[in-house]
Amino acid sequence: MCLAGEADAMVTAPLNKEAVVLSGQSFSGHTEYIAHLCGATVSRMLLASDKLATVHVSTHIALEQACNLDRKHIVRTIELGAEAMRLMLGRSPHIGVCGLNPHAGEHNLFGRQDSEVIAPAVEEAKRLGFDCSGPHSPDAIFIRGVRKEFDLIVAMYHDQGHIPMKLIDFEETVNISLGIPIIRTSVDHGTAFDIAGQDRADCRNMRAAMRMAVKMASGRLHSAAAEHAAATQGVR
Amino acid sequence: MCLAGEADAMVTAPLNKEAVVLSGQSFSGHTEYIAHLCGATVSRMLLASDKLATVHVSTHIALEQACNLDRKHIVRTIELGAEAMRLMLGRSPHIGVCGLNPHAGEHNLFGRQDSEVIAPAVEEAKRLGFDCSGPHSPDAIFIRGVRKEFDLIVAMYHDQGHIPMKLIDFEETVNISLGIPIIRTSVDHGTAFDIAGQDRADCRNMRAAMRMAVKMASGRLHSAAAEHAAATQGVR
Repeated sequence: MCLAGEADAMVTAPLNKEAVVLSGQSFSGHTEYIAHLCGATVSRMLLASDKLATVHVSTHIALEQACNLDRKHIVRTIELGAEAMRLMLGRSPHIGVCGLNPHAGEHNLFGRQDSEVIAPAVEEAKRLGFDCSGPHSPDAIFIRGVRKEFDLIVAMYHDQGHIPMKLIDFEETVNISLGIPIIRTSVDHGTAFDIAGQDRADCRNMRAAMRMAVKMASGRLHSAAAEHAAATQGVR
Repeated sequence: MCLAGEADAMVTAPLNKEAVVLSGQSFSGHTEYIAHLCGATVSRMLLASDKLATVHVSTHIALEQACNLDRKHIVRTIELGAEAMRLMLGRSPHIGVCGLNPHAGEHNLFGRQDSEVIAPAVEEAKRLGFDCSGPHSPDAIFIRGVRKEFDLIVAMYHDQGHIPMKLIDFEETVNISLGIPIIRTSVDHGTAFDIAGQDRADCRNMRAAMRMAVKMASGRLHSAAAEHAAATQGVR
């Protein structure tokens, strides 16, 4: 329905990966399945709440492996994150990019990725017109996000973004898939079979995921309307 | 004075590492200098506020290098962290140990350190009598610390502990040196030469460092008094 334009966005509830595999499917989670249906090859995970938004350069890989950064991959992450934030905010976002190492490497004292990979990626993104800066010291950047100095923070690995998001807004953090042509948001928790049928489930995260989908779909409709108006005016 | 028993604790203000080096000293920061004066060879950094406390297995090294975990080093970190927390709390702490990889490796799907190094370290610490558990998923453990399920969280690398501490309590987080025979706390910020003489400095962190030193020194005096009383009673 989303691909056919009959729906403006989709929101997914949690599913049990083990159950999916047992049912004989070739996928284990929503994200891969939806990306497959959309014919998408790249994807990124954006976590967002009203307090903070973080897009991840890598997610479910070993930390050691996540240290092998690629400049183009970082630039693409900035692009995809900026595109999604534009739908949410109605304007281009201010973006802060994390370093990888403590104090963003402190002049190559602890690792060289910050100066040799991340800094050139930030420069390239700036040349492409994005309002971004970095690499910033990872332990100082998130409080600046909460204080609204940045609309979006680019995290280099799963926990660099997930630790602050889940600490600052555990109940309202929504998971947004980037790199697919449709708007898809999801809750950021599991199935909680252990409390099924006990009337104890907390709906706040599901509600936040729905709200985010509405916000992003409205943003897309507005921007399409604005483009249409501009094009019409050009014709006149 | 601390080593001679004339002072019960010391609190250090920030210093400028570049200025120290320019003055021709053989050290660049307080921590190494104090450890040297104390004849200490191991040290760990504990960050603590009323909201959260985190001790670090490693600090100022490249992230890639921090992935090379050592079981004994983790056990020693748990011991040193527990000892400091006992002075603060007046009892043994509940300790949660972080995994290294996303979701603590999710059954060796992303990296093997969680199951092969951290889990055995936690088992060893338990055998030694520490109330600890883990490895826990790094993105879910810190909110449990804030909710007081854990008194102390053991972080595997600098930013795993620094990101949540600086996000949740930027102004009141105190730096405590472990592995030295004296009590030493420090502010967790720099010299801020850029605002010198403008009457804009914020003293909250210095005050928190002083309060923490008093709390830990009182804890040590109480525990020494309790030991003395127990010993005396044994003689009677």
